[in-house]
Amino acid sequence: MYRSHNCGELRMDQVGQSVTLSGWVQSNRDFGGLTFIDLRDRYGITQIVFNMDDNADLGEAARKLGREFVVKVEGTVRERSNKNPNRATGDIEIEVSDLQILNAAKTPPFTIEEDTDGGDELRMKYRYLDLRRNSTQSNIIFRSRVGIETRKYLSNLDFVEIETPFLIKSTPEGARDFVVPSRMNPGQFYALPQSPQTFKQVLMVSGFDKYFQIVKCFRDEDLRADRQPEFTQIDCEMSFVSQEDILNTFEGLTKHLFKSCINVDLPDFPRMMYDDAMRLYGSDKPDLRFGMEFVELNDVAKGKDFAVFNDAELIVGICAKGCAENYSNKDIKKLTEWMQRPQIGAKGLVYVKYNADGTFKSSVGKFYEDADLKIWAEKFQAEPGDMLLILSGETDRVRKQLNELRLEMGNRLGLVKEGDFKPLWVLDFPLLEWDEDAERFHAMHHPFTAPKKEDEQRMLNGDFETMKALKADAYDLVINGSEIGGGSIRIHDRALQEKNFKLLGFTQEEAEEQFGFLLGAFEYGAPPHGGLAFGFDRICAVMKGQSSIRDFIAFPKNNQGKDMMIDAPSKIDTTQLNELNLLLNLSDTE
Amino acid sequence: MYRSHNCGELRMDQVGQSVTLSGWVQSNRDFGGLTFIDLRDRYGITQIVFNMDDNADLGEAARKLGREFVVKVEGTVRERSNKNPNRATGDIEIEVSDLQILNAAKTPPFTIEEDTDGGDELRMKYRYLDLRRNSTQSNIIFRSRVGIETRKYLSNLDFVEIETPFLIKSTPEGARDFVVPSRMNPGQFYALPQSPQTFKQVLMVSGFDKYFQIVKCFRDEDLRADRQPEFTQIDCEMSFVSQEDILNTFEGLTKHLFKSCINVDLPDFPRMMYDDAMRLYGSDKPDLRFGMEFVELNDVAKGKDFAVFNDAELIVGICAKGCAENYSNKDIKKLTEWMQRPQIGAKGLVYVKYNADGTFKSSVGKFYEDADLKIWAEKFQAEPGDMLLILSGETDRVRKQLNELRLEMGNRLGLVKEGDFKPLWVLDFPLLEWDEDAERFHAMHHPFTAPKKEDEQRMLNGDFETMKALKADAYDLVINGSEIGGGSIRIHDRALQEKNFKLLGFTQEEAEEQFGFLLGAFEYGAPPHGGLAFGFDRICAVMKGQSSIRDFIAFPKNNQGKDMMIDAPSKIDTTQLNELNLLLNLSDTE
Repeated sequence: MYRSHNCGELRMDQVGQSVTLSGWVQSNRDFGGLTFIDLRDRYGITQIVFNMDDNADLGEAARKLGREFVVKVEGTVRERSNKNPNRATGDIEIEVSDLQILNAAKTPPFTIEEDTDGGDELRMKYRYLDLRRNSTQSNIIFRSRVGIETRKYLSNLDFVEIETPFLIKSTPEGARDFVVPSRMNPGQFYALPQSPQTFKQVLMVSGFDKYFQIVKCFRDEDLRADRQPEFTQIDCEMSFVSQEDILNTFEGLTKHLFKSCINVDLPDFPRMMYDDAMRLYGSDKPDLRFGMEFVELNDVAKGKDFAVFNDAELIVGICAKGCAENYSNKDIKKLTEWMQRPQIGAKGLVYVKYNADGTFKSSVGKFYEDADLKIWAEKFQAEPGDMLLILSGETDRVRKQLNELRLEMGNRLGLVKEGDFKPLWVLDFPLLEWDEDAERFHAMHHPFTAPKKEDEQRMLNGDFETMKALKADAYDLVINGSEIGGGSIRIHDRALQEKNFKLLGFTQEEAEEQFGFLLGAFEYGAPPHGGLAFGFDRICAVMKGQSSIRDFIAFPKNNQGKDMMIDAPSKIDTTQLNELNLLLNLSDTE
Repeated sequence: MYRSHNCGELRMDQVGQSVTLSGWVQSNRDFGGLTFIDLRDRYGITQIVFNMDDNADLGEAARKLGREFVVKVEGTVRERSNKNPNRATGDIEIEVSDLQILNAAKTPPFTIEEDTDGGDELRMKYRYLDLRRNSTQSNIIFRSRVGIETRKYLSNLDFVEIETPFLIKSTPEGARDFVVPSRMNPGQFYALPQSPQTFKQVLMVSGFDKYFQIVKCFRDEDLRADRQPEFTQIDCEMSFVSQEDILNTFEGLTKHLFKSCINVDLPDFPRMMYDDAMRLYGSDKPDLRFGMEFVELNDVAKGKDFAVFNDAELIVGICAKGCAENYSNKDIKKLTEWMQRPQIGAKGLVYVKYNADGTFKSSVGKFYEDADLKIWAEKFQAEPGDMLLILSGETDRVRKQLNELRLEMGNRLGLVKEGDFKPLWVLDFPLLEWDEDAERFHAMHHPFTAPKKEDEQRMLNGDFETMKALKADAYDLVINGSEIGGGSIRIHDRALQEKNFKLLGFTQEEAEEQFGFLLGAFEYGAPPHGGLAFGFDRICAVMKGQSSIRDFIAFPKNNQGKDMMIDAPSKIDTTQLNELNLLLNLSDTE
């Protein structure tokens, strides 16, 4: 027997008991006659003590135990003279009578502690050691808990968890697929799913009615900061439901997860139209932990001598509370330069300081009277001491830029409080997005999203402008500015789905070849249905108030899509390539 | 609102209530003035009634509803005059006041009923319709339940569910990998995991202590009858445990699943040594629902004039109870031919009839006296009326052949009772298997399995014969002759793992390149650990008394690895191939 107890469970109640513990040597303090070792496992740390006077051999052996040695000890629980109130087992220690080294350990390349000295790359290579650190380990255990609670909640509501296949068919729509050559079908390929979208819809046609799955999805994208080529979704679909049913069901799930996993009671989720989100926050995922809504100035700022504003499609700004006094010209210049970086790309930044004494100071002061600026200030409900920050230009671009500025100012002003959670449903997304370059529409959500019921006929018969104005019962769940999940009511009618494919630039043959099974399924009694998918990695990170999903994935890949620990991807044998009827074609790249 | 109730929940208690139901038209019976429709969803069937006298338009509309139309009805619950005791809702029906067709349906290509007229291929192509049939649908829902109960049981024991990556590294050991070309790393490939074996071991090194995952695995094998290229495992690993701990934990899980999912109380699982299983049943997964153990005759059948037996390494048979009378010469000839088919490959089949009158009749009667045969019969504990069936030849081959015969005779004699479950642990598998052709050892379980503790030194230092005799703490869970799960105690020592790789024919470079991370992990404090994996598809099928796992997979592939519904695999665009730096090399195959 390796252990009678784990390293986190012994208390005063067990004093006097003989116990066996196994674990890792966290630290080894040698005080001559006495050796204190902190023995660690995932449940906690227990202090074990060796006394040279009692047993010199044992004491000698204990002295030699290095960090991360795996040992088994037998001994007796006793009360500590010097208790540690910060540790659950801090009232007791083990007086060791027997020690067995189960495995030695080389000195780890970095310390197994919260403030580790290991850099990112080193920790990824030795991920098995990084996962010993308390924060990393507890993130992974937390993730497991979120999965359990998700399944508990959904299965109580009669959702059926159904596994959909991983070896499916490549479809060029959307992001790039990872493909898998088929040895048994030469020249043919499977694709790994970007999501189980069409399969879950087919399951609705089958009558499963309430489906979910916690499932890996794959996208072969150029990786940005916080993307992973494989990621996990809580994927859900329901039949015979309206948008309202879906919002209520998954608002319920989200509240349950927050309550059961981090003991936070979320309020009912406010709802915001997509158009309002864009107008007020310049983003379809506004962070509502602070206000600082956009205020548009077209009606009051145009018609003077300032050509930039006169020519602008949109003049819009935010009010930075209390910043009039403490933003010097130099500060504003730096802020302007920050906005002008290519990542944001603002042309300039107009400021208006509403000084504490009621006067105004502005970079556009020579074009506007104080009386004009006062009117602006009133639109912002600004008070003396505040500063307005204003952008102008093409609407979509300016909103996007001002969104960045708003988030930056919110952070600078300390408006984002730890432990604060602001959920939000964003509703009524446009169905289609016109792509000037490709001269075709893109699906705003995906090609299976239905227009609003009242827009169906207009979609089948309408003109170009009608198509641009179509709205969908599509919804995103946003928490603290992160998109946690999103979904839509789906098309369940063949004619409407064919029309949508056509708008998205599919020929009839392409639509049939790629999605013929779904179009076919719609002809055999497809019920009205809809659903959504949560980003599982993301929701774990947001609940823990962390920004990177990587810390919630046991074995993440780096920005080049590489697993540094196992060294994947890698070359494969020529025999493997031959069996797959493939040749490498590297002339251009090597 | 699409429904106030589902189609399986209305009872006498609701008589008089106004309700809304949605579902599929299962059948439509038109009796002139009255139209009865069975409305179906996954919860059940409710009868809905249209009366021409009450509402002629509605009655007309109802008459036209075809099979599998999706409709919504409003109406009032009333007591049926003609109750159907075989249906949960059979006491009531709905008097319809409003009908809405949510979607029409073409006539399905096969009937959506238990005894469907659809052939296998047709049902695979229209899998979304096949999944509407009660047995298929209930299998999938059953599978979901088994998953929930598995997670409940293991998480109550502090197991953490951890997702391991799908894009990993190709390793030539074992079955063929499916590979995934990396666009970002030209000329390099990921592989899809055949199992999360090395990752779960790394998690033990990380200290997670109790891991599980219900996870897809992939093997690019030539598909036999009941194999799938992607299948699902309940994958588990534990640290600081002996074989006994693991057996107890997963015997507990199995009992829990049988109790909670099919209300069967399994007894404590008997245990059998691998050597005994091979000797008594010729199989490492004996079906214990009936006896008919092998009896070896070398000591009593050799030394007479029958050269076939004299030259045989093994003479072994089974006793078919009560078959002496009802197996004619012709029957025995047919049975012999059945044994001689290439799938089994027996050279011949010797019979000994122990007639009801105490006399003997045998195909080897001219070589043996009745007194000899009487001795044989006694070894089998045969009684008058029984028939002995005997094979001879090379031990391994003969045992395998006799295993087939035993299973066949068990079936013929009706010894396999429905609802009977006979679990069995098979223990003490050999560590290594000598491959004459390849002139190297194969791992009997896998390359990470440890020899028995007491064999460790012999493994490090022993000779060839020693290696062949090494036993492992490796175990299989067998139920009714199906291997449900298997696992082992793993190596956690670098030197031992290196030795094992060497025995398995790895060069040091190959071992380092493929498994360097694991060898490295063993140097930084790897705890003793072991685990097992259940075949999730298989355990579902066995619990439901079914032989094919395909019926428990929502979207299975056929024997060519094809998904007939979505038509995958398929060709991909040249641009995709170019991006992946690949060329097709089809000259030999097309």
